[in-house]
Amino acid sequence: MRENNVKKIVAAGGNVVNGWLGVPSGVTAEAMAHAGWDSLCIDMQHGLVDYQASVSMLQAISTTNVTPLVRVPWNEPGIIMKSLDAGAYGIICPMINSKEECEAFVGATRYAPQGYRSWGPVRGMIYGGPDYAKEANTTLLSIAMIETAEAVANVDAIMSVKGLDGVYVGPSDMGISMGFGPGFDPTEPKLIENFKKIAEAAKRHKIFAGIHCGSAAYAIKMIELGYQFVTILGETRLMAWAAKNAVTAVKAGKPNPNAP
Amino acid sequence: MRENNVKKIVAAGGNVVNGWLGVPSGVTAEAMAHAGWDSLCIDMQHGLVDYQASVSMLQAISTTNVTPLVRVPWNEPGIIMKSLDAGAYGIICPMINSKEECEAFVGATRYAPQGYRSWGPVRGMIYGGPDYAKEANTTLLSIAMIETAEAVANVDAIMSVKGLDGVYVGPSDMGISMGFGPGFDPTEPKLIENFKKIAEAAKRHKIFAGIHCGSAAYAIKMIELGYQFVTILGETRLMAWAAKNAVTAVKAGKPNPNAP
Amino acid sequence: MRENNVKKIVAAGGNVVNGWLGVPSGVTAEAMAHAGWDSLCIDMQHGLVDYQASVSMLQAISTTNVTPLVRVPWNEPGIIMKSLDAGAYGIICPMINSKEECEAFVGATRYAPQGYRSWGPVRGMIYGGPDYAKEANTTLLSIAMIETAEAVANVDAIMSVKGLDGVYVGPSDMGISMGFGPGFDPTEPKLIENFKKIAEAAKRHKIFAGIHCGSAAYAIKMIELGYQFVTILGETRLMAWAAKNAVTAVKAGKPNPNAP
Amino acid sequence: MRENNVKKIVAAGGNVVNGWLGVPSGVTAEAMAHAGWDSLCIDMQHGLVDYQASVSMLQAISTTNVTPLVRVPWNEPGIIMKSLDAGAYGIICPMINSKEECEAFVGATRYAPQGYRSWGPVRGMIYGGPDYAKEANTTLLSIAMIETAEAVANVDAIMSVKGLDGVYVGPSDMGISMGFGPGFDPTEPKLIENFKKIAEAAKRHKIFAGIHCGSAAYAIKMIELGYQFVTILGETRLMAWAAKNAVTAVKAGKPNPNAP
Amino acid sequence: MRENNVKKIVAAGGNVVNGWLGVPSGVTAEAMAHAGWDSLCIDMQHGLVDYQASVSMLQAISTTNVTPLVRVPWNEPGIIMKSLDAGAYGIICPMINSKEECEAFVGATRYAPQGYRSWGPVRGMIYGGPDYAKEANTTLLSIAMIETAEAVANVDAIMSVKGLDGVYVGPSDMGISMGFGPGFDPTEPKLIENFKKIAEAAKRHKIFAGIHCGSAAYAIKMIELGYQFVTILGETRLMAWAAKNAVTAVKAGKPNPNAP
Amino acid sequence: MRENNVKKIVAAGGNVVNGWLGVPSGVTAEAMAHAGWDSLCIDMQHGLVDYQASVSMLQAISTTNVTPLVRVPWNEPGIIMKSLDAGAYGIICPMINSKEECEAFVGATRYAPQGYRSWGPVRGMIYGGPDYAKEANTTLLSIAMIETAEAVANVDAIMSVKGLDGVYVGPSDMGISMGFGPGFDPTEPKLIENFKKIAEAAKRHKIFAGIHCGSAAYAIKMIELGYQFVTILGETRLMAWAAKNAVTAVKAGKPNPNAP
Repeated sequence: MRENNVKKIVAAGGNVVNGWLGVPSGVTAEAMAHAGWDSLCIDMQHGLVDYQASVSMLQAISTTNVTPLVRVPWNEPGIIMKSLDAGAYGIICPMINSKEECEAFVGATRYAPQGYRSWGPVRGMIYGGPDYAKEANTTLLSIAMIETAEAVANVDAIMSVKGLDGVYVGPSDMGISMGFGPGFDPTEPKLIENFKKIAEAAKRHKIFAGIHCGSAAYAIKMIELGYQFVTILGETRLMAWAAKNAVTAVKAGKPNPNAP
Repeated sequence: MRENNVKKIVAAGGNVVNGWLGVPSGVTAEAMAHAGWDSLCIDMQHGLVDYQASVSMLQAISTTNVTPLVRVPWNEPGIIMKSLDAGAYGIICPMINSKEECEAFVGATRYAPQGYRSWGPVRGMIYGGPDYAKEANTTLLSIAMIETAEAVANVDAIMSVKGLDGVYVGPSDMGISMGFGPGFDPTEPKLIENFKKIAEAAKRHKIFAGIHCGSAAYAIKMIELGYQFVTILGETRLMAWAAKNAVTAVKAGKPNPNAP
Repeated sequence: MRENNVKKIVAAGGNVVNGWLGVPSGVTAEAMAHAGWDSLCIDMQHGLVDYQASVSMLQAISTTNVTPLVRVPWNEPGIIMKSLDAGAYGIICPMINSKEECEAFVGATRYAPQGYRSWGPVRGMIYGGPDYAKEANTTLLSIAMIETAEAVANVDAIMSVKGLDGVYVGPSDMGISMGFGPGFDPTEPKLIENFKKIAEAAKRHKIFAGIHCGSAAYAIKMIELGYQFVTILGETRLMAWAAKNAVTAVKAGKPNPNAP
Repeated sequence: MRENNVKKIVAAGGNVVNGWLGVPSGVTAEAMAHAGWDSLCIDMQHGLVDYQASVSMLQAISTTNVTPLVRVPWNEPGIIMKSLDAGAYGIICPMINSKEECEAFVGATRYAPQGYRSWGPVRGMIYGGPDYAKEANTTLLSIAMIETAEAVANVDAIMSVKGLDGVYVGPSDMGISMGFGPGFDPTEPKLIENFKKIAEAAKRHKIFAGIHCGSAAYAIKMIELGYQFVTILGETRLMAWAAKNAVTAVKAGKPNPNAP
Repeated sequence: MRENNVKKIVAAGGNVVNGWLGVPSGVTAEAMAHAGWDSLCIDMQHGLVDYQASVSMLQAISTTNVTPLVRVPWNEPGIIMKSLDAGAYGIICPMINSKEECEAFVGATRYAPQGYRSWGPVRGMIYGGPDYAKEANTTLLSIAMIETAEAVANVDAIMSVKGLDGVYVGPSDMGISMGFGPGFDPTEPKLIENFKKIAEAAKRHKIFAGIHCGSAAYAIKMIELGYQFVTILGETRLMAWAAKNAVTAVKAGKPNPNAP
Repeated sequence: MRENNVKKIVAAGGNVVNGWLGVPSGVTAEAMAHAGWDSLCIDMQHGLVDYQASVSMLQAISTTNVTPLVRVPWNEPGIIMKSLDAGAYGIICPMINSKEECEAFVGATRYAPQGYRSWGPVRGMIYGGPDYAKEANTTLLSIAMIETAEAVANVDAIMSVKGLDGVYVGPSDMGISMGFGPGFDPTEPKLIENFKKIAEAAKRHKIFAGIHCGSAAYAIKMIELGYQFVTILGETRLMAWAAKNAVTAVKAGKPNPNAP
């Protein structure tokens, strides 16, 4: 079965630089797949992407060696299994707040006896290879989002679920749940405290920790905190950032380094 | 009829900062429409965009006051008229090399007796307003691309076509036609010479000159040369530029100003 | 944050005339958005519309000031949150039969501590404005459908759920649940009795009541009954009604007022 | 080969009541196919419809016995042949102003030796039947639009083209070409004069005449003038007409016959 | 209401040869609808098909008399009801392992008092006919998948659910749940034993049994075992099988009977 | 620049086994790309495929090493250039009957000074590589269809056009033009005679000859006649062939080798 870059990099102690896709188009997905990311996550939760578009995007990513992941809208077996069948090499599941929720999630990503995933990896096998049945349970990633105070309280129970490969922190939801409001790259000490706890717990449970960042600077800081999987914004924000800077530069009559 | 920003800015002696769309999606189009551009051109020639996607993109742009333009694939009446009917407020037509080609192009954009456009602005009237029939011929822009040595030789004949509002320079095709190859932001003196000639001729014919640029710096330089309509890259390249810089920064462990 | 027309009209004691969209197309959505409705509801339950089409439709509606609502297929957090993130300014949720169901629904539409909505209003913030985080909980509408005898029995418990803004009656399902079968604009006294009870309960709970109608005449009657939010058919039935009348008129050789 | 309703009705001296489709959706197409029209024309010229959407629409129409026609964007062999291959049972071609243009058009719709259509009716044969090769040239309709003063001047030359089955009048373009401006259902005597001339010429050449109408009343009048093929508006305008009437009625608190 | 072929054939003691659709396209669906199948099932579980594509596919199938079925991704009321509203004449629901799951499933497919399906068969009524309200509960099929050892253990409880019309066996999931791994057309005695048990139980409960097969030979064998509803592969595998055989034949320079 | 398999195989004296795509879907395209073909041609002429779908299909093919070709609807620069920009590695152009037509075609596929292709290979460069500007003119294939008696008469003039890489025979159109009607795999001696002439002329002009076949057997025969590029049917016919055979086998109760 085709190797999973994320698994391999993490196992080697490296850091995964992950890109984020919220535009329902194979065109942006393919362009991002050529931008140097180790993996790309199609965001079906907050991105403007539904399943059918995700199939085209998975194909577009498959023109390269970048590992495709999918964040599903919710902890629901139908879309988790459909995404894996379409060729996702890992699932990020939002709002896992308890062990039971984590078990339901991980079970949906594994064939029996490890879970209850239903067989039929129509595109997954084209992408992964003919030994998919044998290797899928150990190749595909199950990543739970830890994004509330409740989840932090239950972090050991959640991480003890067999088959869980990693956790992913959503700073905005964590901020909201703790009363600080949403926002990229928070510096609020209580949030940072939680981020540390999560990274340490992950290490303890021998799984990896990931986090959504709003800048390269913050991603670098999070890597220092023990996060081995960092995302920087999404393709729309990267585009808008460069676009706004370019317009501003021309209107001001002064080029500047944060615009092409 | 809804005003045409490009026409208004140019008439006031200002400069239009134009964005460029090559992704077949209303999602990227709407995000770009919020990035500060005065106008946005949907590129149906080299962009990966066909007519049906352009309709969604025109709708997405219409959620703002940004003026929507369309570059058609070729000088062909069917697609020119369809694009105007869908609500484009101007057409950029590639490869206009002679007066005859320019007349055919401009004629397709105007109702009789100025041209031979067929009536039926199904979405154009929704966007433009109920007085479309009366105002369309003087509100919508007809912009011819000057992008070969032959076109430069015929520049006065081309620009003398009644109803032409502006010209748009394609530096890469101009470079190829002169034996220098394609490329953004050329500095080759013979090309710059041609760019000057075109801007001067435009001024002489009381139409505006536009040009496709690869950077804010070059756009500023072109404005100094007399160009009143400048484009900086397209949304995919802006996205890819920021993405590559972000990945590089994180992999190097060093933030830098050309990444968020 | 951009104002919510429905909320404003209802608060001022007025009546909302709401349009209904079941065609998966931004083209019909934009045409309907120019037909005079105060709000438009995209019907993802019985309409032939899925999430991806709804995004284009929301963009099309956003070219005007008409307030966009979405009826979700079922009381499921994934699609409720996706629809809000895409820019819906209110959710109509089918088949709310108990307080628990209503709490689950309303919770999915509110950020903590009022609910458990996850942060990431990618298009919602483009549409609503930069103060979305602060204002969303009080701007977006949560509307529960009351459409069974069971729901009528539980109407006070349902309406007591904090954060619920309104209820919406589905006469056909109500008719089926009471043994009368489906149908527009019922006159069966027991149904009318229930409609009255619901309107009165809504007034008691200081929320608004809405209802799906099959004709202008019935909508007017329902307004008299206390309903402040009335829908007349959907765009497909309006089209089919006018089309059939036009064909009939021409085939009969006699124009008549119910055809153009 | 499946019979062509339009051909059959016209041959029997009857009148065809034709519907018009400008929404790129199989959903509206199917609803219109159940509204009583004898035939439905997909408008790829001024409608917001491109080829790919037309395929879904042709399938939707094929769920009924309504005869599917396509108006192409322009007199161009590529799209004429693609539309026939997709199962259109007739082509309406805009802006035929001369015999030569008419010959080019009709030739594109016929296999050699009558024309130069290329073989490959991939869906046409599924829809039409296995004897397509033998019957297509005499079953499919070639309909030229007569919509300028120039075309009226050349009407006998145009109608003399062998294989032409009918003509279709575009009143708005005719109005523009004669200096009266666009508009449905004109009463200007010079236009009516031309409409008469065209109907008479059609009778003389043993082909049928059709016309685009804005109301049932006008269609009835045109039938009296000798037109055997009449269209009343398009699906979007029918929908918008009924929608606006419904909103107005409810807002006025008074039902009226031109709203459901 | 339009008759249900599957119901009719099964009632007459015949066998249904069912085709399987996993490509999200009306084009393949229409071609398959002309290939001789009695019914066609759109696979929204493992096929690469989402709801919006399924609507086009249902329309394409409706150009013929082939009965359309849908396999939903999971036992979830939203998608079950949406599929029926779109015109499916039966639902196959995966992974029914208990009586409770079966009741939830069947309830979602029936109007009260038999179940809790919500009214609004927008396309279902176009396809089925005006007496849909009266006939739907007895015309549409509810088919539960029996595909785990657990389900076999509970087979009588599951089949005792009122309103269940048939069961459908997934050999691969059954194989996995019993420790034999996935695979078409298994010969493992313990699996065959289970297949027999299921067919016998179905007979006992007066419902029909169906099974997914990988070849005509196996389908014939299953019919002998008492299965009245057999599927042979899906359209993609049929295509790939013929394609690979054709390539191999040409590369070998030797035609052979398993390639055209 | 990425190598062109077709060019390489032909240059080495081998034979290209080409697959044919008429379904507008990346799903079928990807499945066909895994079936062993050397190249795949997206048929935008008679296939039910438009430009936007072709982009997804080109991406799907690009997940493998199969070389992507496009047959354009007609000899028109807009779509020829758009297809190359989208990543096609060769264009098959229908109905080339004269030297002038061939020159217009080949010119549209080459950058100056060899032709008049416009620069902007947005996806072509992603697929081909950064040296696209330098290598495109010699890497991409220009293939003219020879499919009428007139074209056979002009075969030497057509083949003498500089830059033409190959010709492709359409047996059905050739049959029609010679009075024999359409049909796969003709045995009519006058047609075979023409096929021979074309293959010999191609050899004389040092370009390759290709032909569309209905069976492996015929393809093998054509290779013997000197054709180095053979297509066997299209994906829809391969699917339908296997599907019909499977249904027939099950209904007859007898498996047979031409069904799986």
